[in-house]
Amino acid sequence: MDFDRKFLERAVDLASESIQLGGGPFGAVITLVGKIISESGNRVVPLKDPTAHAEILAIREAAHKLGTHDLSGCILYSSCEPCPMCLGAIYWSGIKKIIYASDRHDAAKAGFNDNDIYSEICLDPSERKIIFHRVKIKEADDVFIKWKQLENKISY
Amino acid sequence: MDFDRKFLERAVDLASESIQLGGGPFGAVITLVGKIISESGNRVVPLKDPTAHAEILAIREAAHKLGTHDLSGCILYSSCEPCPMCLGAIYWSGIKKIIYASDRHDAAKAGFNDNDIYSEICLDPSERKIIFHRVKIKEADDVFIKWKQLENKISY
Repeated sequence: MDFDRKFLERAVDLASESIQLGGGPFGAVITLVGKIISESGNRVVPLKDPTAHAEILAIREAAHKLGTHDLSGCILYSSCEPCPMCLGAIYWSGIKKIIYASDRHDAAKAGFNDNDIYSEICLDPSERKIIFHRVKIKEADDVFIKWKQLENKISY
Repeated sequence: MDFDRKFLERAVDLASESIQLGGGPFGAVITLVGKIISESGNRVVPLKDPTAHAEILAIREAAHKLGTHDLSGCILYSSCEPCPMCLGAIYWSGIKKIIYASDRHDAAKAGFNDNDIYSEICLDPSERKIIFHRVKIKEADDVFIKWKQLENKISY
């Protein structure tokens, strides 16, 4: 039995179901030691939440179920290559393996901006379409000093 | 009155408060026509949610309050340059202006991986530390065809 294929097909099924539910055509599954611990379709429009991508919702559910922000033993299966937001979330979660079917170019052909956002994120802030304006204030430095001096802190 | 400075100082105050609440040293504020509509500190550890960065939580709250995933009229103030996850969320939300105090290099000195994640995301998937394995399956193509053929869909 090809478990990777089985879990990836489940992610694709969720992508298809997501369309019926008013979401975008994306689905994701997270497994731990060969068992599904969370899954979701895209819910941006139904939840009116721009962050409600399938991978983000699956990561949040997995973290809730496991009782930790650290998902480093998990595998993520996604119907499509994760966008930069979801990929950032994957790095923060500690997930080390991603299996996916479609890629950012397939998503672009279906009208999604993943590829453009990858291009923007890799530019210097001054070259992006979004305005980035830095204002240095001393209090911001003080916050990091306070953090560095804090004992027994839980890092992530 | 320098409103940009006022809102940025509020974001930095939230970053400082966040440390007291067991979160990371980050804060964010979102405004619409010169008024704060949402704000948050970092809540990764207290909420046990790797996606609970200040910007993500502020975006989710702003979208909830405005009743739409589209925050294109809003400005985001952040105590620190947003990480790639949050920057991706900013692009998806339609926010067009970001004002921030510290940057990814200051965050790195305080022990946060933002800069490393920027580097990873800009690499080809095959060159990253995380394993990316693509499995092409026909059903994934069918999902995008179904999406493209759907009439009256709400895109985002």
